Amino acid sequence: MTTLEIMGQNAKQASRVLMNAGAKKDAALYAIADALRANAQQIIAANDIDIENGKAAGLTESLLDRLRLSEERIEGMADGVTQVAAQNDPIGKVLEGRTLKNGLQIEKITVPMGVIGIIFEARPNVTSDAAALCLKAGSAVILRGGKEAINSNKAIAAVMRDAIEQAGLPRDCVALIEDTSRQSATELMQLTDYLDVLIPRGGAGLIKSVVNNAKVPVIETGVGNCHVYVDASADVKMATDIVFNAKTSRPSVCNAIETVVIHKDIAEAVLPSIKAALDTKNVEIRGCERTKAILGDSVIDATEDDYAREFLDYILAIKVVDSIDDALDHIAKYSTGHSECIVTSDYESANRFTAGVDSAAVYVNASTRFTDGGEFGLGAEIGISTQKLHARGPMGLNELTSSKFIIKGNGQIR
Amino acid sequence: MTTLEIMGQNAKQASRVLMNAGAKKDAALYAIADALRANAQQIIAANDIDIENGKAAGLTESLLDRLRLSEERIEGMADGVTQVAAQNDPIGKVLEGRTLKNGLQIEKITVPMGVIGIIFEARPNVTSDAAALCLKAGSAVILRGGKEAINSNKAIAAVMRDAIEQAGLPRDCVALIEDTSRQSATELMQLTDYLDVLIPRGGAGLIKSVVNNAKVPVIETGVGNCHVYVDASADVKMATDIVFNAKTSRPSVCNAIETVVIHKDIAEAVLPSIKAALDTKNVEIRGCERTKAILGDSVIDATEDDYAREFLDYILAIKVVDSIDDALDHIAKYSTGHSECIVTSDYESANRFTAGVDSAAVYVNASTRFTDGGEFGLGAEIGISTQKLHARGPMGLNELTSSKFIIKGNGQIR
Repeated sequence: MTTLEIMGQNAKQASRVLMNAGAKKDAALYAIADALRANAQQIIAANDIDIENGKAAGLTESLLDRLRLSEERIEGMADGVTQVAAQNDPIGKVLEGRTLKNGLQIEKITVPMGVIGIIFEARPNVTSDAAALCLKAGSAVILRGGKEAINSNKAIAAVMRDAIEQAGLPRDCVALIEDTSRQSATELMQLTDYLDVLIPRGGAGLIKSVVNNAKVPVIETGVGNCHVYVDASADVKMATDIVFNAKTSRPSVCNAIETVVIHKDIAEAVLPSIKAALDTKNVEIRGCERTKAILGDSVIDATEDDYAREFLDYILAIKVVDSIDDALDHIAKYSTGHSECIVTSDYESANRFTAGVDSAAVYVNASTRFTDGGEFGLGAEIGISTQKLHARGPMGLNELTSSKFIIKGNGQIR
Repeated sequence: MTTLEIMGQNAKQASRVLMNAGAKKDAALYAIADALRANAQQIIAANDIDIENGKAAGLTESLLDRLRLSEERIEGMADGVTQVAAQNDPIGKVLEGRTLKNGLQIEKITVPMGVIGIIFEARPNVTSDAAALCLKAGSAVILRGGKEAINSNKAIAAVMRDAIEQAGLPRDCVALIEDTSRQSATELMQLTDYLDVLIPRGGAGLIKSVVNNAKVPVIETGVGNCHVYVDASADVKMATDIVFNAKTSRPSVCNAIETVVIHKDIAEAVLPSIKAALDTKNVEIRGCERTKAILGDSVIDATEDDYAREFLDYILAIKVVDSIDDALDHIAKYSTGHSECIVTSDYESANRFTAGVDSAAVYVNASTRFTDGGEFGLGAEIGISTQKLHARGPMGLNELTSSKFIIKGNGQIR
C-alpha cells in the first residue's frame, strides 16, 4: 500500500468512530482551539521558515501576506474553531419520515460523509478552518495544502492531531499529506476506496485540474464570473452603489463582480455615474462599442475573453444590451453560475431575472458580495459550490453531511 | 464541434426553456404517453430487429426477455409516464428562507439540474422511464443506451421527441445518442461544458467504467452487496422469513441480499431453519467453518471473494460471528453501502446496528427488498444511489433537482 492508501485506511477507521462521536467532537474542537493558542510560538516558528522560503522563491508581497501567521491570526484561527464547536450538531437530524401502509416506519436522517479530502493553496489558516468543519460534521479529513505553507501546515496539523487524541478521539480524524508534489494531489483525487468526497479550494487552475483528474466525487467551489444587470427601470444611485460595492469592496474574492450588463435605455444616465464612482478606485473599464460611445475613448475595447474572465482585480467589463432577454443570454453564456444581480424597480423584470438566471445566488437590488456562509446565516463555510450536485452556494455544516434511511419493522417481507 | 457537442449545446438550450416550463411539462408527458400507445406497432417493429440481431448474436433468453417489447409492455411504459406526470412538480419549492438583520430576504428554492446524462444497458423501457423523470424535474436529458436495444431506443426517442414538440416544448429536451460505440460513452462522460450530472444505470462493470472515465459529476447507483445480520436475540421464524424473502423473491435485483451474518449464540437454532427454507429454492450456500460445522458438508467453503461479491443469483454466503461488533466490522468491510438489515428483539442491538451501519438503507426486522422509490413512497425512481454525495438511496423526482438562493433587497451593500 502507498503512504496515501494507508492514510486513507486510517482515516476510514477514524471516520467509523466519528460517525457516532456526539459531544466528543466538541470536546476535541475546544481542545484544538486551546492547543493552537498554547502552541502559537511553535507554529509561528514553522511559519517563519515558509516565509523565508517564500521570499527566496520570489513570492509577491500579497502572497507572502496570505502565508504569514501572527499571534493575532492564530488567535483568529482558534476563535474560528471555537465558533464551529458552538454550532448545532448537523448529524442525526431527522429530515423526513412517515409510516407506510405495511407498518414500516421510515426515517431519513443526516449522517457524516465519511472521509473528506480538501485540496487548497497558500493560506495555512485553511488547515484548521476546514478540519474544524469536517470534524464537527462527523467526517475524517485528509488535507493537502500548497508547498508554500507546508511547514506551517505540518505544525498546525500536529497540534490538532495531538489535541484530538487527548480529547479521546483517533488522531487520524485529521491528516495532512506532507508530500506536496503534483503526484500526491493526483493520487488523492483517485483514492476511490477511501475518499467519499473531494473539495478543492483555490483558483480556476486548481479546480480545473481536479475536475479533469478526479475519480472521487468532487464539489467544485469558488470560481465567480459574477454580473450586475442594470435594468431600464433601475434607480441610478442604487445601481451605482451596488456596482461600486460589488466591484471594489474586495476585488480578489469570488463574489466580486466582473461584468456589468446595462439596458440601453438607461445606459446614458447610469454609465457616467458608475464611471465616476469607479474612477475613485482607478478601476479599468473594458466596454462594448455602445459603452465607448457614451464614456469616450478612455474605455478599452472589451473582447470576448474579457466577458469570460474572472479578473479578480480593479478591472470591470461593461456591455450595453437591448433587452432583459439579451442580458439573460449574456449571463447564460458567460456566467460561472456563482452570483448575479439585477438592479430594477420593475416587478416583472425582477421576477424574470430571478427565474431566468441559473446561478447559485440570484439577487434583486443587493450586492453580490453577500454570497457567503456567514452573511447568509449558515455559519462558517467550507467554500461556495458553483455546481448543481449536492450543494449549491455557500456550504456550511449541513452541506457537509449525507443522509441515510432507517426503516423499522416487525417482520415485514415483500 | 462533434455530434455530441452539438447535442449537448441543443440540450442546454432546451434546458433553459424547461427551467420555467411549469405545466407544459405535464402536457408533454401526457403527449408522450399517448404517442407511445399510438405508435406501439412501429416501436414493436423496431424492437423485432433488435430481437433478431440479439438472437443472431447469441444473447441468452433472459437478456432477450429484458429486451423484448410487447403491446402490454409499451402500455406499461405509457402508464409509467402518466404516473410521473401526475406527481407534484418538484421545481420551485421553497426549502428554507429567512429575513436577515440587514433586511435582505433570502430563500432557497428547488431548480432543475439542467442537462442530465443517463447511460444504461439492455432494457428499452428505461428510455421512456428516465426521460419522463428528467422532463418532469425540468431537465433536458441525453440518453445513451446499449447497442442491443438501439433500434427500439431510436423508435421510442423519435416518438417522444415528436410528442414533446407538439406539446410546445423543444424536441431537444430528450435526445438519444445513436452511436453505441464505447467512444460515444466516454465522450458523454467528459462533456463537462454541457452536462450537469451523469447517472449510470447498470451493472458493476458499467458503474466502474463511469467512475474511472467521467469528468462530469456522477451519481453512482445500484450495486448492492446487501446483508442480513441475525442477532443473538432474533426470533428464528422472523429471521428465516426475512432471509428467505430477501434472497429468493428476486435474486437478480440490487436490494436482494448476498450474505447472512449470524451471531454464534443463535447459529445452531437458526441455520437449519434458514437452510430448510432456502433448499425449497435450491439456493447454494457458501459458509464459513462454523456454518459448515452446523449445516454439514453440503455447504461450500466461502472465500473472501464470496463475501465481496454481488451474486445476483440463487447463491448465499453465510458467516457466523462472535458479536454484533464483529458483524458491524464484516459489513463495514464488504458492504457496498446499499441496504442492510438486523433481525433482533433487543433494543440496544437495534440501536447499535442502525447507528453503526453506514448504508443508504438500514433495516430493523424487515426485508432489504423494500429499498425502492415506490415502496418508500417517493414515486418512480431513476435509480438507487449508493454514494454519499447529493442523494443516497432511492432517487425520485426530488433527488433530480438542484437549488438556488434568491435574495431580495432594496439597495443593500456590504
